[in-house]
This record gives sequence, structure tokens and C-alpha cells, in this order.
Amino acid sequence: MGIDDTWFTPLTPLAFLERGAEVFGDKEAIVYGERRLTYREFAAEATRVANALRASGVEPGDRVAYLLPNIPEMLVAHFAVPLAGAVLVAVNTRLAPAEIKHILAHSGAKVLVADAGLHASVPSDSGVGEIVTVTDPASGASPDPRVGGISYDDLLARGSDEPLPWTVADERGTISINYTSGTTGQPKGVLYHHRGAYLNSLAEIVHSRHTTESRYLWTLPMFHCNGWCTTWAVTAIGGTHVCLRAVDAAEIWRLLEAERITHLNGAPTVLVTIAGHDGAHPLDREVLVTTAGAPPSPTVIKRMAALGAKLVHVYGLTETYGPYTVCEAQDGWTALDVDARSRLQARQGVGMIVSDGVRVVDDEMRDVPRDGATMGEVVMRGNNVMAGYFADPEATEKAFRGGWFHSGDLGVRHPDGYIELRDRAKDIIVSGGENISTIEVEAALDSHPAVLEVAVVGVPDEKWGERPKAFVVLRPGRSVEAEELLDHVRERIARYKVPNAVDFVGELPKTSTGKIQKFQLREREWGDRNSRVQG
Amino acid sequence: MGIDDTWFTPLTPLAFLERGAEVFGDKEAIVYGERRLTYREFAAEATRVANALRASGVEPGDRVAYLLPNIPEMLVAHFAVPLAGAVLVAVNTRLAPAEIKHILAHSGAKVLVADAGLHASVPSDSGVGEIVTVTDPASGASPDPRVGGISYDDLLARGSDEPLPWTVADERGTISINYTSGTTGQPKGVLYHHRGAYLNSLAEIVHSRHTTESRYLWTLPMFHCNGWCTTWAVTAIGGTHVCLRAVDAAEIWRLLEAERITHLNGAPTVLVTIAGHDGAHPLDREVLVTTAGAPPSPTVIKRMAALGAKLVHVYGLTETYGPYTVCEAQDGWTALDVDARSRLQARQGVGMIVSDGVRVVDDEMRDVPRDGATMGEVVMRGNNVMAGYFADPEATEKAFRGGWFHSGDLGVRHPDGYIELRDRAKDIIVSGGENISTIEVEAALDSHPAVLEVAVVGVPDEKWGERPKAFVVLRPGRSVEAEELLDHVRERIARYKVPNAVDFVGELPKTSTGKIQKFQLREREWGDRNSRVQG
Repeated sequence: MGIDDTWFTPLTPLAFLERGAEVFGDKEAIVYGERRLTYREFAAEATRVANALRASGVEPGDRVAYLLPNIPEMLVAHFAVPLAGAVLVAVNTRLAPAEIKHILAHSGAKVLVADAGLHASVPSDSGVGEIVTVTDPASGASPDPRVGGISYDDLLARGSDEPLPWTVADERGTISINYTSGTTGQPKGVLYHHRGAYLNSLAEIVHSRHTTESRYLWTLPMFHCNGWCTTWAVTAIGGTHVCLRAVDAAEIWRLLEAERITHLNGAPTVLVTIAGHDGAHPLDREVLVTTAGAPPSPTVIKRMAALGAKLVHVYGLTETYGPYTVCEAQDGWTALDVDARSRLQARQGVGMIVSDGVRVVDDEMRDVPRDGATMGEVVMRGNNVMAGYFADPEATEKAFRGGWFHSGDLGVRHPDGYIELRDRAKDIIVSGGENISTIEVEAALDSHPAVLEVAVVGVPDEKWGERPKAFVVLRPGRSVEAEELLDHVRERIARYKVPNAVDFVGELPKTSTGKIQKFQLREREWGDRNSRVQG
Repeated sequence: MGIDDTWFTPLTPLAFLERGAEVFGDKEAIVYGERRLTYREFAAEATRVANALRASGVEPGDRVAYLLPNIPEMLVAHFAVPLAGAVLVAVNTRLAPAEIKHILAHSGAKVLVADAGLHASVPSDSGVGEIVTVTDPASGASPDPRVGGISYDDLLARGSDEPLPWTVADERGTISINYTSGTTGQPKGVLYHHRGAYLNSLAEIVHSRHTTESRYLWTLPMFHCNGWCTTWAVTAIGGTHVCLRAVDAAEIWRLLEAERITHLNGAPTVLVTIAGHDGAHPLDREVLVTTAGAPPSPTVIKRMAALGAKLVHVYGLTETYGPYTVCEAQDGWTALDVDARSRLQARQGVGMIVSDGVRVVDDEMRDVPRDGATMGEVVMRGNNVMAGYFADPEATEKAFRGGWFHSGDLGVRHPDGYIELRDRAKDIIVSGGENISTIEVEAALDSHPAVLEVAVVGVPDEKWGERPKAFVVLRPGRSVEAEELLDHVRERIARYKVPNAVDFVGELPKTSTGKIQKFQLREREWGDRNSRVQG
């Protein structure tokens, strides 16, 4: 940056692994089944891969795509790719070949590193210069000859152990591009810079209370906002990464004990999976669980507390490096009963320590009153907000109208300044001119003891335009009649918000990160009718 | 910085108090005797003082000097002065009027805010535009009419509650100038920028494990490296500052209990004072004590552990925003016996999470071997190293020769990469061509049960050039003969390192920050002889 570099060093997560290798060289950095890598080995592998990518023709600024589950090679990529001066594109492993093809083409990826177990998702005409296949013995999958390319070992053989500088010329340079899940339209490529990734990593350490003793279980996909920057954060603090190929409750419980896990991150549905497992039992230590993706219901909060987990509720989007707000606990809350406290904890909260601040605004960018009732859109800005959408100036301009990033999430601001989401703009139900928050209806349903999980969407209604409908998964061995359940809800929320219908289902459609895909439920109900007009 | 400010925000500690007021508005921010300020009040007072300084003619970039003990007004200044766009010069309260006059003149301070109890230290012809006097009822001191000027209340009356932006135009702008203690020559003004102060604050939070529940006792002077950036760090995390006008063991023990203190910082001599008090007793919770200024002896480490304190040993200088390295604990250390562990913990360690890295180099800037024996000079660089000395390009250039800041501290590098100071360059004893580390000799003396505190310096010797001499303070009620003590030392270190003489003294000369002033001891012994030539 043209600054005297004796006292100005670019902020980059690369420095975290450099320090890890220096300070915690012999310490366990990565655990995956029987594999154990020390920090020295972690850094050596990142160096070898970076040199191999360069030897493969990857130039500074080139994009390198990865399609891997949460295995060590995916973690190494978070350092190896930027160490090569390139940009990491970690692709959602649940996407279809056509979607992946779009991301590879849009990002202009030069290389694709793919897991053999995901070869079915690799598009036939991928358009990348070379495909590298990781064959994970734990998956049992063999490479599909159709995919071609070289093996990960072939790639490594091209590399060397020649040290590379753990730094970048410009901290505002791009470290990764993360594609939005894009429930409608094409996914957009969110640009992360080194500075934002560095600062958000420090914020994750502070708010999730990581220490050098952290043993972090990878229940959250690394392709999701680079694991909310936890790929970099746990490395920065010198903790231990415990990899996990797939979210499996039995394996999670085994690792919680066998690896003495202290921290994990996940959407509330993942927590429901963990808490609902046969083997669930109170832990002999406090495990810190950071959750986001949907507000944890009071029921989830209570269940996790019963297991000995301390819950930290955060909120953000792909565009904000993952978490941007945190529901900071206040002194007075411990004196409240568990229900009152849970309601406060279910709010999205306030800006994290490195955040610029969060606002809830109306269409004219005016702050809504702090009344806990007036809805507006949540907007954010600062170092941990994306630099923009890759190769999409129009979408970037639209997202940043008024100088703030527009989340598309609707919420209120409480008198204490905490924000609370009421809904995604597209998830709000407009019934007879009244807005109904599906989150509020879901919380009322969820508080019934027979309910395991629930989703509420708007369905067409001749008279009201749309009306709420509930999709309910019951807890194993429990039952409840629809009318009894609705009586339970009527005691808790206004009559006009009570669903007209309840469908009991075996499971809910979810994204790879555990978010419930309401658009799938809506599609079932709306069929080929025109999509409703948003009020 | 000319960057699109929707996604790039300057790093400044000002943002920490803005967030504190927003997120922890009703929380106790500052405690001082009966006074309790919430975060909202803290921010309001900073705003009022900033506006008052502006109304008093303070322009952006002007220097504002403060001569206050650790009282709330000093803490407020850490935000109020930069909020006014000005630069804080927090002056060491132990300095003589002539020294303070030099600092006021060198910094060109426009305003001096001084405590009535320190009026005797205010030079008659201060040269500043205006003196503001804080009269602290707890001190019992009245303003000296000689000093003149206005009262703090007068200053506040000039202010307003008009909000000011909690930001700066350039994160590389100066936030404070801290004058070195300058045991020889004139003190130099160390330039801190907003970026460095911000990043070092986050590092303090991480390494001292601060949380929103932190209740921090101000045993470390705020004028000392801005309290190692803890003025900003504890504010950033939303902890509670417990002010302390003077280091008094009885008052410290009262506050440890009455205010449920969780954290404090201090030099090992401060810890000796705390541990040696009649009222010392094991605490019912872990208090995290961050120590620097001298390596804590194994004895201090053991005594603090017995009280329930967890010790974090850090090292740095005024030029590095306070702490730059930390002695990170490694997994294997817990299995060691307390003596072996204490020896490892007494080392200065490795770069902190935001540090660029620390080196030990010879005169040609070559790294010394990692053998724990070869001495070299400790050098550092990066965001948490000063931008230079104010108005002293020559000293700046000399300090940064070879592109790294030269600490003047001599040390070794161990095979595990940890650095360990052997001495200040000027504290090493050169005896018959051999270098003797006074620290090593002191540790040997300190391990005797009758010894409370010790300092070793070189004294003139006809044959050897110089020889070590010990100054020893005994524990109350304990006694030991000099020869018995030296026998104890002979069992522990090489014969040539054993002092030739022992002086039993009532106390050791110390700086305001609790560092032992060896130069005073040396002066007594060397009288008007020429100072020894450094080998």
C-alpha cells in the first residue's frame, strides 16, 4: 500500500497460520478420523499446495474452486489458495451440476478441486482448466472416470516446500468469493477481502470465546461463508480443528466425547438434530455453541442448556462474512426466568465488536422507531461487509443503495437497541393487509411439547390473499391433533395469525447448511399460480 | 483514505465507546469509590469533554496533555481527546517539574489537565495555553493557586452534548504520544496511531481473555502505554473499569472482593506487593493477572498461583503499544512440575495474535541460533509497533535500522522459538569478558524463602572490570546471613555469576510503574566514575 512497512503490515488471515506454525508447531491443528496434523504440518501442506497451484499455472488473482466436504484438504485450501496469491471459491456441495457449472463459469475458475464422492455433481463440461480429485478413504467413493483430471497426490507432487511469504500486497485484495445460495435467480459471487476476513476472524474469537484450548467441531460447512471465518479464526487462536465429513448426530456425539470438543457452530436445525439424538446427554463441561441462520426458538435454547451447552446467537449473511451481529447477554438477564431469557436471546442483537453498526430502516433510509413493533429492513456496513458482487456492478449498486448494504431481512428494533428479525422480505405473510411474521407463528407452534420442528408459509386464500399454513414434524413417539395444536397457538398469538391448516410431515426440506427451504413448501402450495405480490 | 466507505471503515478505538454506549448503555462502565458511570454516561462525558476542548481552541492534530492518576477523568480522556480530533499526551505522574516541562514543550501541548494533588509537579512556566485542574475529593488535595487556570467543571461548562462522529479520517493518524521513561537522556515521544491502538486492544482482549463479564482493576498506570491499551480494550469488550488512585495493597485487596475483580495488570513488583500483604488470601475465583515489565520469577508465579491468580506473562515497550509478545502456554506444560513450568512461563514468549513476529538478531540483523544461549537484540515490527518518535527523525531512523524496531533488550531464542530476555543492554554485567545476566542471578537469590525482592547490578572491580552485587529486601519477620544466601545461590548458578556482596535494604528504588530502577543502585556504587563501556 506504499506505506512504510516497518510499522504497517497488511491484515491477512495468512499471518494466522504463519504464527500457528511458529508458536504451536507441535500442537494438534487438524484431526480427521485417524489423521492428525500439527500446525507445522498444516502450514507445510498449505505451502506445498500453494506451490503446486502455481506450478499448475495459477496466477495471482486467479480463482481456484473447491468442491469438498469438511475434510482437511478444504481447511488447507483456506490458506493454500491465498498463499498462492489466488482467490478461493468454496462451492456448496449440495448444488446440482448446472448450478456448479454456472459458478465455475461466472468465477472463471482455473482449477477445480473436487471430492470423489461429489463427482456426480461435477458438470460434464466444467470449463475449468484442470480438475483435481481428492479421494477420501472415509467416503468409500472412487473417482468417476468421466471427470478425468489428476489426483490430489499428483497435484502435491508438482509442489515444493519452498517457503512463500505469508502476506499480501494489499489488504483490500480479494481472498475468496462466496456464492449466495440464491433461492431465486442466479447465485451472486460475494467478494471477501483479506482485511475483512482478518477482522471478522478476531471478532469470532472474541464473541465465541475461543482460547488456545479450543477444540472446534466442524458441524458448519466450510463452504458456507468460509465457515463464518472460523477456518481462519480457530487457526488464529491456535485451537484444534476437528473435521467432520457429514452432519451425523451419532458421529457428533462420539466426537464430542472422544475429542473433548469445546466449541461448535450450527444452524438451530443442526442443534435440534444434536439435541434430539438418542445418545444426547448432559456434558461434563460447557460447550460453546454459536448459532445462526434462524433465530433459535426458546425450546431449542432450553434443550441446549439442559445438555450443558452455552448458546451464542449471531446473525449475518454471506455478504457480511457470516456473523455480523451478536445477541450480547446483559447482566440483568440471568435473573429472568428461562422463558423470558430465551425470548431475549432469540433476538439477533447488536453489531459485533468489529462491526460498524446495524440499522433497521424504512424505504427512505430513516431509522424505524425503537418500539419493537415497527418493521423495516436490516442494513449494515463496514469492514466486515463485502466489497461487492463479483462482476456484477448493477447488483452491487442495488445492494448498497443509500450507502448501506441491504440484507433483505425485515425486522424491528427494540427499546434496548437490539434488532429482531421478523422475516425475510419474501417470507412475510400478507393476510388481509396485515403482515404476519412466520417466525412468530413458528415459535408459538414450537412451544408445544409434541413438536420437534416446524415451518410456516403463506398459502393462497380467496378472501385474505394468503393465510399461514404450518408444516410440523412431531417428536418421536409423540402425537397431537391439529386442532389441539392450534388451540395451543391461539393462547399465545393473535387470532389472525393462527394457521388455517396444519400438515404433519416426516421431515422438512433443508439447505445444506440446515436452513429450512420454505420456498419449496410454498411451491407445493402455490403450484403454477402467479407468485404473490409483496405488499 | 479515499476508499468507498460503504465497506471500509477506519480502525479506531473511538468505535469501541460508540458501541459500548449503544450495546451496554445501562451497564456499569467505570467505578471509582462511590462514583458509578454507565457506558451511556461514559460516552456522554467523553462527548462533553471533546466539545469543551474544541470550544477551548483545540484544533485537529493538537496535543492535549493529561497529568492525572487512574481516576475516571483519565479514562474519559482516552476517548474525549481523539473524539475532539486531538492527540492525547498522558504524562507520567512521578516525573519532576523539569521533566514535565520538557514533555509539554516537546509535544507542544495546547492544554494541560492536571490533578490538584499533582500541582507540585506542574512547572511554573508550563508553556501551555491553559491549565485545567481536576480536584478529586478522594485525594484531599486542594488546587495550588500558583498553577492558576480553570477547573474541570469550568471546562465541562464550555462543552455541549452535541454528538461528534466516533471516527477518524485516517486510521494511520496519531491518537496519542507516550513519552518513554528515559532513564538516560531526554524522553522520546512515541507515536501511536488509531489502527495500532485498535488492533492491540483486540489482542489484549484475546490474550488476557477478557469477556463482557470482565471487572478490571486499574493497578497499572493509564499513562503507561495508555495502560497497555487496556483503556480501550476493556471498553471494547464492555467490561467494567475499577479505578484506583494509588497502588495500595490494602485497597487492592478490598476492591478484589468488594468489586469482584476478574482481571488486573501489573509489573511483578506490584504482584509482590499484592501477594505480600497481610490480607492476602486465596480467592474464590480465578483472577487473570497480566504481567510485564520484568520476567516474573518462579517464586512470584508460585505465590500468585497459590492465591488463585492465573498469570499471563507479556512483554513489550512503550514503542510497541505495551505488550507485543506473550508467553503462550503449551499443552505439555501442565504435566511439568511447578519449577519447570515456572521457568518456561518466565520467558517473554512469542508474538501476540496481531504481531508481525519477533526476532533476536546480531549486529548484522542475522537471526541468532535457536539454542537458548546465543544472545542478540530483540527486534519487532508491524501494526503494533510505533509509527516513530515525534519530531525526532534521527532517533526514529536509528530505532528502525534494518527495517525493524530495535528494543535495546538482549535475549536468546529457545529451540521452541520462544524468546527470553537476558537483560537490558545496559543491565548486563561484563565481568572478565564474560556476560552475566542479572536476571539469572536475581532468580537464584529470589528462590531463597527469606527473600522478598532483589536487584543485582554491576559494581566496579579492579580485577574483573565489574562484578555483580545484590540488593535484597527480606520478607517481614525473616532473616538470613549474607553468606548463607550466597551459598544458596552457589548451588544454583555458575561461580563467576555469584555476587561478591549483598546489601540488605528496606526497599528498592522503583519507577511509578513498579519497575526497579537499577540505574539508581548503579549510581550509588559507581559514584562519579566513568560509566563502564559496554562490551
